[in-house]
Amino acid sequence: MGVHQYFKSLSDLEKLYRCPGKFKFQEHSVASHSFKVTKIAQFFGTVEEQAGNKVDWKSLYEKALNHDYNELFTGDIKTPVKYASKELRDLFSQVEEQMSKKFVLREFPKEFQSIYLERFKEGKDDTLEGKILSVADKVDLLYESFGEIQKGNPESLFQEIYEESLMTILEFKEMVSVQYFLKEILPDMLNEKFIEHSELNSITKKIIKANLSD
Amino acid sequence: MGVHQYFKSLSDLEKLYRCPGKFKFQEHSVASHSFKVTKIAQFFGTVEEQAGNKVDWKSLYEKALNHDYNELFTGDIKTPVKYASKELRDLFSQVEEQMSKKFVLREFPKEFQSIYLERFKEGKDDTLEGKILSVADKVDLLYESFGEIQKGNPESLFQEIYEESLMTILEFKEMVSVQYFLKEILPDMLNEKFIEHSELNSITKKIIKANLSD
Amino acid sequence: MGVHQYFKSLSDLEKLYRCPGKFKFQEHSVASHSFKVTKIAQFFGTVEEQAGNKVDWKSLYEKALNHDYNELFTGDIKTPVKYASKELRDLFSQVEEQMSKKFVLREFPKEFQSIYLERFKEGKDDTLEGKILSVADKVDLLYESFGEIQKGNPESLFQEIYEESLMTILEFKEMVSVQYFLKEILPDMLNEKFIEHSELNSITKKIIKANLSD
Amino acid sequence: MGVHQYFKSLSDLEKLYRCPGKFKFQEHSVASHSFKVTKIAQFFGTVEEQAGNKVDWKSLYEKALNHDYNELFTGDIKTPVKYASKELRDLFSQVEEQMSKKFVLREFPKEFQSIYLERFKEGKDDTLEGKILSVADKVDLLYESFGEIQKGNPESLFQEIYEESLMTILEFKEMVSVQYFLKEILPDMLNEKFIEHSELNSITKKIIKANLSD
Amino acid sequence: MGVHQYFKSLSDLEKLYRCPGKFKFQEHSVASHSFKVTKIAQFFGTVEEQAGNKVDWKSLYEKALNHDYNELFTGDIKTPVKYASKELRDLFSQVEEQMSKKFVLREFPKEFQSIYLERFKEGKDDTLEGKILSVADKVDLLYESFGEIQKGNPESLFQEIYEESLMTILEFKEMVSVQYFLKEILPDMLNEKFIEHSELNSITKKIIKANLSD
Amino acid sequence: MGVHQYFKSLSDLEKLYRCPGKFKFQEHSVASHSFKVTKIAQFFGTVEEQAGNKVDWKSLYEKALNHDYNELFTGDIKTPVKYASKELRDLFSQVEEQMSKKFVLREFPKEFQSIYLERFKEGKDDTLEGKILSVADKVDLLYESFGEIQKGNPESLFQEIYEESLMTILEFKEMVSVQYFLKEILPDMLNEKFIEHSELNSITKKIIKANLSD
Repeated sequence: MGVHQYFKSLSDLEKLYRCPGKFKFQEHSVASHSFKVTKIAQFFGTVEEQAGNKVDWKSLYEKALNHDYNELFTGDIKTPVKYASKELRDLFSQVEEQMSKKFVLREFPKEFQSIYLERFKEGKDDTLEGKILSVADKVDLLYESFGEIQKGNPESLFQEIYEESLMTILEFKEMVSVQYFLKEILPDMLNEKFIEHSELNSITKKIIKANLSD
Repeated sequence: MGVHQYFKSLSDLEKLYRCPGKFKFQEHSVASHSFKVTKIAQFFGTVEEQAGNKVDWKSLYEKALNHDYNELFTGDIKTPVKYASKELRDLFSQVEEQMSKKFVLREFPKEFQSIYLERFKEGKDDTLEGKILSVADKVDLLYESFGEIQKGNPESLFQEIYEESLMTILEFKEMVSVQYFLKEILPDMLNEKFIEHSELNSITKKIIKANLSD
Repeated sequence: MGVHQYFKSLSDLEKLYRCPGKFKFQEHSVASHSFKVTKIAQFFGTVEEQAGNKVDWKSLYEKALNHDYNELFTGDIKTPVKYASKELRDLFSQVEEQMSKKFVLREFPKEFQSIYLERFKEGKDDTLEGKILSVADKVDLLYESFGEIQKGNPESLFQEIYEESLMTILEFKEMVSVQYFLKEILPDMLNEKFIEHSELNSITKKIIKANLSD
Repeated sequence: MGVHQYFKSLSDLEKLYRCPGKFKFQEHSVASHSFKVTKIAQFFGTVEEQAGNKVDWKSLYEKALNHDYNELFTGDIKTPVKYASKELRDLFSQVEEQMSKKFVLREFPKEFQSIYLERFKEGKDDTLEGKILSVADKVDLLYESFGEIQKGNPESLFQEIYEESLMTILEFKEMVSVQYFLKEILPDMLNEKFIEHSELNSITKKIIKANLSD
Repeated sequence: MGVHQYFKSLSDLEKLYRCPGKFKFQEHSVASHSFKVTKIAQFFGTVEEQAGNKVDWKSLYEKALNHDYNELFTGDIKTPVKYASKELRDLFSQVEEQMSKKFVLREFPKEFQSIYLERFKEGKDDTLEGKILSVADKVDLLYESFGEIQKGNPESLFQEIYEESLMTILEFKEMVSVQYFLKEILPDMLNEKFIEHSELNSITKKIIKANLSD
Repeated sequence: MGVHQYFKSLSDLEKLYRCPGKFKFQEHSVASHSFKVTKIAQFFGTVEEQAGNKVDWKSLYEKALNHDYNELFTGDIKTPVKYASKELRDLFSQVEEQMSKKFVLREFPKEFQSIYLERFKEGKDDTLEGKILSVADKVDLLYESFGEIQKGNPESLFQEIYEESLMTILEFKEMVSVQYFLKEILPDMLNEKFIEHSELNSITKKIIKANLSD
């Protein structure tokens, strides 16, 4: 009981793996996903600020850092379930909120309760910070699915996730940071050179030739 | 599309881990849990049959083997969520059933659809076979939580699971097989000898003494 | 001592990995293999029954569920060893049977001994159920090796396992369920679409184009 | 080359494990450690703010989020090495800074370079935010080592880490947030109840008795 | 075909885990076991040499390094099986030798065949080097089982392995190096201090008191 | 304190993974790397001896077995760091040597100290044995990187490691054993056949056709 329970719960997020029930070459925990999303949001905020938009940094960091904390209570429920019916999704959100609220009221001393109730709320609203979070969350998902495709994961789910992530990012195409991403970052990701096993032969010969002729 | 999708899905159950988001010394997949529950149900059925009760073996095996197949669609959602409200639990069951039904209608040829719709239904009903399944499911959970406690897992959740499992088993205390379990199996589980590190010293001395004096 | 030892042993099967000593992208335990084989046998039995053949379901489930239980005593010995000489294979089977028998006589109360001696016997006999087990065992092995090849495992062993499994399945080509497998399931497995990294570029462009022109 | 390299590098931090070369029951990556430190720093900042101290939130989040990013270049070098000689430690810091600088200049476009050079600098300075980072970093280390001790890790290193972390925290004992931690959080951590295997017997009996007498 | 196959096989030994089918806190591969046995044999050889005994170092290293290479062909078969009958054990040894011989004749060029046939032979003979190997193999097994007991593994198998290893070591009690081990090394192993969770409380209080009173 | 500490440290080398912070399909510990390098060095020594060169086997085995033991103290520091500046590399070597020396003086009894100080020294000198070690170390690294490329690791680092290893091996091209490696072993490695998923279709058809026409 108390803030200790909250600190201890952070470690549970290290044991909560994303996208359960599918073979992956590299697993990602909710803890490290949250880290990466916050770092990506930091970059997107920087781009917006340089373009002259006002960024509320305190709000942006709070949103990014805490955006999946509630999965502690519900787990990373499979996406198709969450969206199987609008009714379920709404009810699900309600339950999540109730459980989160109950946790805050039980574990946090009075003086911190309102602050943490606020922090654990859904952060993807219409503010600039909310929109950056929506995009950063999907950028990390895009990288996760790209990583699987690149390593040769035959599961078509990862192509679906890749496409779905990209389409969500494009919903925010009017944002300067999204335009930056599409123009400067995404092409580099797609241009990643692959090591072809078949090239090894010629590489090897070239190296041997160059070094034997010394 | 087709039965191949069904066969392939069995492997996804090997990647779906039970009780996500908690540190465990030994992980258990839904696939191996289903195996163990079926083996335990087989034993409980044998006890019932020897006591003169009629067991519908085909039904018992079907129930046990398939009892968690629907987690393929929903994941192993955290128990507290499922029971947070009766409304959610009911809706959740509905969604699970709908998704399972959709899967059967999409992947199975017509001639197998009614059979598999039946197989993927909730099997914990009031028949002897349904009751054996209810108990066998909890016996495996009891062993899983006992295993963690025995290995020194400090997480109090496992004591709660142990207690909750035992209480559910006791709800079926009128069954011969449950009485057998309480009288013949549970005491052996609790009497498991531990290796005390402190004993190693005296064990070692005894062995050395016995062997040096040859 | 007692049935508790039997229940506890089920968890050891979760720690016994198939095909030891070879790099695999996805490991499979004897426990989850047994689960999958029983599920596959269930489907094959259903096909046979629909074709008018009488299936002894109790026998089929017992055979499938227990077919690798004896590996508890011997481990998953490397196949080439087992078949290095007929003499060794025969002796090995004898030893396996002896150890299994000793276990049953030591751990099970008298009233269950004959039942479990029967259950732990080799089930791959000439009955319809024995033949379904032979095929289902190889179908799961086919899927396991296909999974490795599909993920890019360079070890030629998996192609050998794939070929050997297919050939064993074909030995039972007169069975209705095997014909069904060859005609309806295997082609779908082979037609699995791959995600080509090189396609990502055009997919991405198509999505961006479609969404930017909104 | 470009920001894509920076985004990609975040995933490398998921594969960089802390405290290499020692048996641990639970591994922690640099990515999830950074997440936890940022969450802890957020709480400490909140306590300070409530006590009337001014917190520069933007600075605090930047410091916490990026404080171990440079381990990307150097790995989590063993602490005894780092402190083997002051000369080595200083040189080591220089090299780390040079490599980090080189990375920023190579991968980031001009307009972001000064911002990221600043972000990847050592953040543990004498500002309130720098001190909160110093403490939060050690609080997470305290929890990590406590977790190992609690699970029964026999390696004395973890007691040393526990003690060293606590002593570093105490160097900041004049801070309100540290006082809060010592008074409200640490005692709860130490009072964690253990599940004693020996208690299971009596718990079990109590439950059975209560439920059988219904 | 060729020495490349031999080099490649070394990596398979990294995927061959010892003592399959039992829960362990720390897994050990045949590759790293071989490394540790060779290092331990090196120390035992040093002790013998200092006591004036002539050590054939080339032979000792060859024996230690290669002593489990043949498990490549047979896997780490469960000990109880190997010793279930003298007949099986003898046949098993024959098969192992045949497979090893076949491998050498198939993969190695003529000029290396006799050397490698010799290297892959059973090395535990009556020479000083053979006896050191017998002991070093068991010392590593003693450490492996001690490690499990120390970490709280409840499986009684590890106590049996501990006892059996110690007894085998004691069969060589006339050796100077074994006497050294019993007198100088084993007591230190047994005297390893444990961190008691219950001590943390007092340790913590002591540290806080000492540091707050500065 | 004592030789027990040395024996115990061998197990730490099993937990020290090479090339930290990069996604790998197969991890390699320092313990198993040391094993493989010693085995490879054994083969290279054999080739040299057959060519009439005198090999000091005791020295060769000592060098190979112990060549990475010092990583116990420093970890597998990232290569780019080690070579970032000559000054750092030199200082780093000094620190490594000091720590190793301190360990030997603290843990080993007097009579073994000079022997172990010698054994833990850098072994890659200009003797034949030192040169074999240099090459064997890189051959194993070549195999490790080849394994990743073969499995489809998209990380370009592994191609760099492959090339760098090959170039180091070529620095010793005047050695008979290196010439043997280049002529007889490397081509076989590069000629490894791949299983193409696309071939599975035709393989399957061929097998089915052959077996159905029986």
